[in-house]
Amino acid sequence: MTEKPNIAILGASGYTGAELVRLIATHGGMHIAALSADRKAGQQMAEVFPHLRHLTLPTLQTIEEIDFSRIDLVFCALPHGLSQAIVKELPKNVKIVDLGADFRLRDPKAYEFWYNRPHDAPEIQPEAVYGLTEFYREDIRDARLVAGTGCNAATVQFALRPLISANVIDLDNIICDLKNGISGAGRSLKENMLFAERSEDVTGYSYGGKHRHLGEFDQEFSLLAGRKVEIVFTPNLVPVNRGIYATCHLKGDADAIHQALTKAYKDEPFIEVLPLGNLPAMSDIQGSNFCHLGVVAERTSGRAIVVSTLDNLCKGSSGQALQNANLMLDFPEEQGLMLAPIFP
Amino acid sequence: MTEKPNIAILGASGYTGAELVRLIATHGGMHIAALSADRKAGQQMAEVFPHLRHLTLPTLQTIEEIDFSRIDLVFCALPHGLSQAIVKELPKNVKIVDLGADFRLRDPKAYEFWYNRPHDAPEIQPEAVYGLTEFYREDIRDARLVAGTGCNAATVQFALRPLISANVIDLDNIICDLKNGISGAGRSLKENMLFAERSEDVTGYSYGGKHRHLGEFDQEFSLLAGRKVEIVFTPNLVPVNRGIYATCHLKGDADAIHQALTKAYKDEPFIEVLPLGNLPAMSDIQGSNFCHLGVVAERTSGRAIVVSTLDNLCKGSSGQALQNANLMLDFPEEQGLMLAPIFP
Amino acid sequence: MTEKPNIAILGASGYTGAELVRLIATHGGMHIAALSADRKAGQQMAEVFPHLRHLTLPTLQTIEEIDFSRIDLVFCALPHGLSQAIVKELPKNVKIVDLGADFRLRDPKAYEFWYNRPHDAPEIQPEAVYGLTEFYREDIRDARLVAGTGCNAATVQFALRPLISANVIDLDNIICDLKNGISGAGRSLKENMLFAERSEDVTGYSYGGKHRHLGEFDQEFSLLAGRKVEIVFTPNLVPVNRGIYATCHLKGDADAIHQALTKAYKDEPFIEVLPLGNLPAMSDIQGSNFCHLGVVAERTSGRAIVVSTLDNLCKGSSGQALQNANLMLDFPEEQGLMLAPIFP
Amino acid sequence: MTEKPNIAILGASGYTGAELVRLIATHGGMHIAALSADRKAGQQMAEVFPHLRHLTLPTLQTIEEIDFSRIDLVFCALPHGLSQAIVKELPKNVKIVDLGADFRLRDPKAYEFWYNRPHDAPEIQPEAVYGLTEFYREDIRDARLVAGTGCNAATVQFALRPLISANVIDLDNIICDLKNGISGAGRSLKENMLFAERSEDVTGYSYGGKHRHLGEFDQEFSLLAGRKVEIVFTPNLVPVNRGIYATCHLKGDADAIHQALTKAYKDEPFIEVLPLGNLPAMSDIQGSNFCHLGVVAERTSGRAIVVSTLDNLCKGSSGQALQNANLMLDFPEEQGLMLAPIFP
Repeated sequence: MTEKPNIAILGASGYTGAELVRLIATHGGMHIAALSADRKAGQQMAEVFPHLRHLTLPTLQTIEEIDFSRIDLVFCALPHGLSQAIVKELPKNVKIVDLGADFRLRDPKAYEFWYNRPHDAPEIQPEAVYGLTEFYREDIRDARLVAGTGCNAATVQFALRPLISANVIDLDNIICDLKNGISGAGRSLKENMLFAERSEDVTGYSYGGKHRHLGEFDQEFSLLAGRKVEIVFTPNLVPVNRGIYATCHLKGDADAIHQALTKAYKDEPFIEVLPLGNLPAMSDIQGSNFCHLGVVAERTSGRAIVVSTLDNLCKGSSGQALQNANLMLDFPEEQGLMLAPIFP
Repeated sequence: MTEKPNIAILGASGYTGAELVRLIATHGGMHIAALSADRKAGQQMAEVFPHLRHLTLPTLQTIEEIDFSRIDLVFCALPHGLSQAIVKELPKNVKIVDLGADFRLRDPKAYEFWYNRPHDAPEIQPEAVYGLTEFYREDIRDARLVAGTGCNAATVQFALRPLISANVIDLDNIICDLKNGISGAGRSLKENMLFAERSEDVTGYSYGGKHRHLGEFDQEFSLLAGRKVEIVFTPNLVPVNRGIYATCHLKGDADAIHQALTKAYKDEPFIEVLPLGNLPAMSDIQGSNFCHLGVVAERTSGRAIVVSTLDNLCKGSSGQALQNANLMLDFPEEQGLMLAPIFP
Repeated sequence: MTEKPNIAILGASGYTGAELVRLIATHGGMHIAALSADRKAGQQMAEVFPHLRHLTLPTLQTIEEIDFSRIDLVFCALPHGLSQAIVKELPKNVKIVDLGADFRLRDPKAYEFWYNRPHDAPEIQPEAVYGLTEFYREDIRDARLVAGTGCNAATVQFALRPLISANVIDLDNIICDLKNGISGAGRSLKENMLFAERSEDVTGYSYGGKHRHLGEFDQEFSLLAGRKVEIVFTPNLVPVNRGIYATCHLKGDADAIHQALTKAYKDEPFIEVLPLGNLPAMSDIQGSNFCHLGVVAERTSGRAIVVSTLDNLCKGSSGQALQNANLMLDFPEEQGLMLAPIFP
Repeated sequence: MTEKPNIAILGASGYTGAELVRLIATHGGMHIAALSADRKAGQQMAEVFPHLRHLTLPTLQTIEEIDFSRIDLVFCALPHGLSQAIVKELPKNVKIVDLGADFRLRDPKAYEFWYNRPHDAPEIQPEAVYGLTEFYREDIRDARLVAGTGCNAATVQFALRPLISANVIDLDNIICDLKNGISGAGRSLKENMLFAERSEDVTGYSYGGKHRHLGEFDQEFSLLAGRKVEIVFTPNLVPVNRGIYATCHLKGDADAIHQALTKAYKDEPFIEVLPLGNLPAMSDIQGSNFCHLGVVAERTSGRAIVVSTLDNLCKGSSGQALQNANLMLDFPEEQGLMLAPIFP
């Protein structure tokens, strides 16, 4: 019997850290060897996340306390801006899946533009593979460093990449309106994330080209199209815990769009394309690694709508990360990820 | 002392009926003389709506039992399709504010197209004034029959009418994505309206030009523009009780748009235009008759977003109805309607 | 025409401050002359609470900036522990309604026990009248300083005080289980008050005699009974914004209990006793100053349950405060407070 | 390779049916051979429950269409009152796990009392084993017919059975106040289960000894104690989808109670007893088969509180059913049930 690979999770006291533990617990093939949480170092995971108290897990430590020589793969679930400095100090034999934004943008100048700070590790940026599994699968398999996508970025790319590739939509008229669950804001303390502020509310944010995930959209869509593509992107907070629901208004033929999506995803285990005319629902994917896609023709000829929905903490973040880790560690890609959504 | 006008509410056991009673209770100048609810006739309002038990109200009756000779104004809060037959039998001295869809469409053929049934009272349709108070104020003042607007229709028209009038947007590229509270579906029994189905969910519906409020949009915007205007309209259910949040993607200059809105509403008591760049929130208008409007410039030159939010049961329905009744009965337009929103 | 009394609200950037403004806006007889919010001084109320943007209100200032010589009545909606020092410096002509805990406990030793800090103004504590309007009405009318009750304390006292007075329940077997809306925790930043933590959750807190409102219960019930009374009190957080729902398990005869409540409240405008056997619902009182009470007989002879429900921000705090201010300023007690609850 | 046992689920279009499919999908050792849903016969499961669309499942049929000769075990997830007639017609080789109330009460007279209808299969009632796995494990292993417990009944019994057995509580003073998620009401259409009615509300129901699960409590606790035991039981609806949170007010010593629970459950995989003084939260068990128990001493000597929380659809119903089926089919008891809870 070969030994299970040793896994470390940095930033284990956040929501994506907890989600990684939840998924790895049913994966069966990985051993969680270290968990870090700087401010909560010394605590048990069961104190920080009582829903995980049935699991036997290492005590939370600081990153400095981790002996990385015995770690095979690290998940970095750290706040944006912290991974760059940490990743560049890790031993070269350690594989890394970063769940944050630190290595998503290929061009350090773009990073600086969108994140208002210089890149701390431009020398290792070229190593980073963009972690949208379904489109970078072979690169990820061989990568040492994988940069997880933004959760919004994943949701919208599943809707649009095959359409750009198949050349079935007008690239200058892409409008994506997103409805976003609250867990995407993480566990940090902000007045506008209090229950009494978010419950019974809907509010837009970062309208007008201000959202940082636009850096990813611009990079990926322009690369794919071979020309500059700038989408309109309006995210909105809605009072649900998990889930992103992206309504993409497009100019293009609904049939051609539906065919392009069906063809692109016909062998993908986690992407479900609904019959033409059907709309997905956010509650159909919560708690799972699935993404559901629906296509509807507009009444105005030449217009169509594509909806994409996934769980921001799972397929949009920790599930994607585990899917990539499976590839990097030679596990079957679906291992630990075929959990059905929870409804109701 | 002159006597208070006698008011009847038909369909008092639904949400808009209850909202009318709530508002009239603080109005002070109207007397609720009759309440109808066919299936619940004989019950007290306090049994059907215990939150109104502190009020002294007439017992629920059938419509047939009401003596309309002593009624000055009737609010019809009936399910769609029932008002036409009832309204045409009412004595001519009775003023009517219909909250349903029965008299909204000026052309009975358009009614038949969108509602899949012939109009039951085409002979009185010409009398009906479209009830968007801020734009039909003078006609409403003199009307016998006012046709309340759809709640979505009101929300979007507050955003777009001044822009069409001021000719500052491209009429062929109007995309309106709405996030809708659940009370808009009323109190009727549908599986998809159960708490366990709607809680923690977002789902689109009637995408692709199927929603009946498009009949109103087509009518009003085409009339206003003097040419055919067909907007894209994608409503989505979000798990809040009250509120509509409309994100309107437009081609036009944000400054010109903001100026047009500011100018159009500068004397309106219920329409608040936020400073350019600010987004409203649904929780800022719940429980009130206010509509908040925000304008943001897109990063792509020549594009802008207008957000409009209001309470579907109040400004979108019963509040609008009371505002119109105030005009019809010579009360100050704001009477009973200046209640501040409830937050949190 | 006499001038309206000038009102100051200290702590106007919290939820109870906003609720006071909402209520005073429809009161009509008071003039809001000053609003304080130390950390947000200099901001407009519309920035802090956009739902109040239709109102003309003074700019937020620090407490030090307020000229109290022109103020008739101050509402202190400050965090616990701050009012004592501030109130003792106010000019003697200013009337004070404190919404916090600083003057609720008659005995400064009890204050020290429950709040873990010495009382900062023991010399003025004897002046303070306990603010449960329905039971201290005449004292409040003549008071300079009224100490608002805790929101849980109000809810439970409405259920129990008439029963203790009428001697119809066993004082040694009173068990009160409360379901509490989240706004009771205020607007301060705590991880366990984030939307993602509270949504879809129920959790008990301060079980085992640890909750500070027990200081009020012990004081008031022992005073009323003429002997020591210690109730069992288990509060629980439930994912609603507003409302407290208290289930009181009692030993006593349900008929006698129902009669005692009915008699006690027969002339009270805000307390509704439901028919015997009926249970109230939290959604029947939200947004209002009403308290609904229900009585049910247990199947075991000699046991009964009384349920009391009210809105923690309104009747449990700001509504009570305004009701008391009405008495202190010779307004009709109900003025500004007869708003119907909002449902749904 | 031995073949997987064939499973049928009757009533697969309800929430407990869907939950069974979700759990069996990760179990790996069972084959879903038939799914019934009378009114939806002919539809695909993916139409009724789109969150299960990634699974290959049989088409929904009527019960009559199922060939039971090839079925090894049937889960009956039917509305109350339908299982008795159906179960008695099943071939004797088919094992049955009933999730409803039809076989829970050993005495058909008790069934008639609580359910207001005669028992349709009194002749097979003696065969039925009460399905509270942790306490009837050996009987269940050998049973042909297992009667699943009520979800409330399971929650409270996990708190109280060890205490009755260990004789550490006063049997005449047991008060259990429950906070119940809405999915417990199932998918049937009731006005009071609409989103707009349940959201933002808390309401008690069946207070005063009216709830049918009292039949189970009376039966089980009296049997265990060897004398009549009648608890006080007050369930309350709270706006969460899944979960029951039971606060049990007891007379007894908290240490003795905590020891009795710790001892009783020390080898149980699904029951977690928290350290003395800690309270569980509903969000710590949602989506899982775990039950968390907490014990707190009251300030009044001789009183203690035990809290029990579990997921009504999983451990309270479908998870329990699968746990029992595992025993009946010689699978490891935990198979398919070790999924971690989902948080947030």
